[in-house]
Amino acid sequence: MIPKNLLKQIEFIKEIDKIKYIQRRTKLFNSNRNENNAEHSWHLAMMAIVLSEYSDLKIDLLKVIKMVLIHDIVEIDAGDTFLYDQVKSHDNTEDEKKCAERIFGILPKKQARDFLEIWTEFENGISNEAKFAKSLDNLEPILQNASNNGGTWKEFSVKHKTVYDKKKIIKRGSTELWNFTKTILENSVEKGILLE
Amino acid sequence: MIPKNLLKQIEFIKEIDKIKYIQRRTKLFNSNRNENNAEHSWHLAMMAIVLSEYSDLKIDLLKVIKMVLIHDIVEIDAGDTFLYDQVKSHDNTEDEKKCAERIFGILPKKQARDFLEIWTEFENGISNEAKFAKSLDNLEPILQNASNNGGTWKEFSVKHKTVYDKKKIIKRGSTELWNFTKTILENSVEKGILLE
Repeated sequence: MIPKNLLKQIEFIKEIDKIKYIQRRTKLFNSNRNENNAEHSWHLAMMAIVLSEYSDLKIDLLKVIKMVLIHDIVEIDAGDTFLYDQVKSHDNTEDEKKCAERIFGILPKKQARDFLEIWTEFENGISNEAKFAKSLDNLEPILQNASNNGGTWKEFSVKHKTVYDKKKIIKRGSTELWNFTKTILENSVEKGILLE
Repeated sequence: MIPKNLLKQIEFIKEIDKIKYIQRRTKLFNSNRNENNAEHSWHLAMMAIVLSEYSDLKIDLLKVIKMVLIHDIVEIDAGDTFLYDQVKSHDNTEDEKKCAERIFGILPKKQARDFLEIWTEFENGISNEAKFAKSLDNLEPILQNASNNGGTWKEFSVKHKTVYDKKKIIKRGSTELWNFTKTILENSVEKGILLE
């Protein structure tokens, strides 16, 4: 007999396969191929492991990794939102909450509650782990755009000040990664791949 | 001034982007699109979190997650090998070792050593964490093939006994997942999507 909980967990594992089809606006490094949410989440988890020493605050690395691995699962129903979109913002929308409840709800009860809690904690951005996870989530596309001759900055004529203001959130998790970000942005203006 | 170690770490983060281009033989769930290594690694990390209760042995979940996130990075130089390939086996080849040393060697020294150790531990398959990580790595394509009307089993005319023998490794990490696997394989033979 296969335990009932295991069947629910396998159903969840199949369901989340769908994030591999959700395309982000940002392209892979030195590439014109869009990144999908599974690739993005894998990369953030790797960044969490590699860059954890730069968190200003004491963090539970396992929790940060869980956050970045699951943070985009809600987009299976809600779809990807774009940081520089003027109409639809990325802030914890009702759509995303409903999706989180549906998808994490496939899991056995206690596990579903745990996942929903971690996702909500990430979205709220208040805990040490959420702050650092958001630093990483905001840093990856900067690295990609800088490697892609401006990438989405150029594509959408985004200005230095806009990127600077949107990305200041990186500082909440890591002064070092924020200083590094500022340098990349300044260099990008100098290179002419980000508008003054 | 940007710390020298951070520059090395960023270089590593860019380098590993390449696994997003490495195609596996196995297809996504209910799909005819091949899975790439980044997607596969993300999925295994999610499986580690969701299924950790089924490990027969006491495990450090963070270590299991690290293992599955990095286990295929060596294929950037060495390329993907296929489980049912008669010529080239997946066993810890010299090519893979060289690749591990090159790519992890981009990182600061201590971190490079840590990554190489974790990768080697996974490859050796002896520690509790390595056993469970290998259970997951072997389970995912079974779930995919079963959802894909036979998938690579059908494509390469693989027999039940061959899959059974190759996949028995799942038992070393988890009796429960192995029992579940046996049920899937039996059902697949009944459905005619896996050869007797």
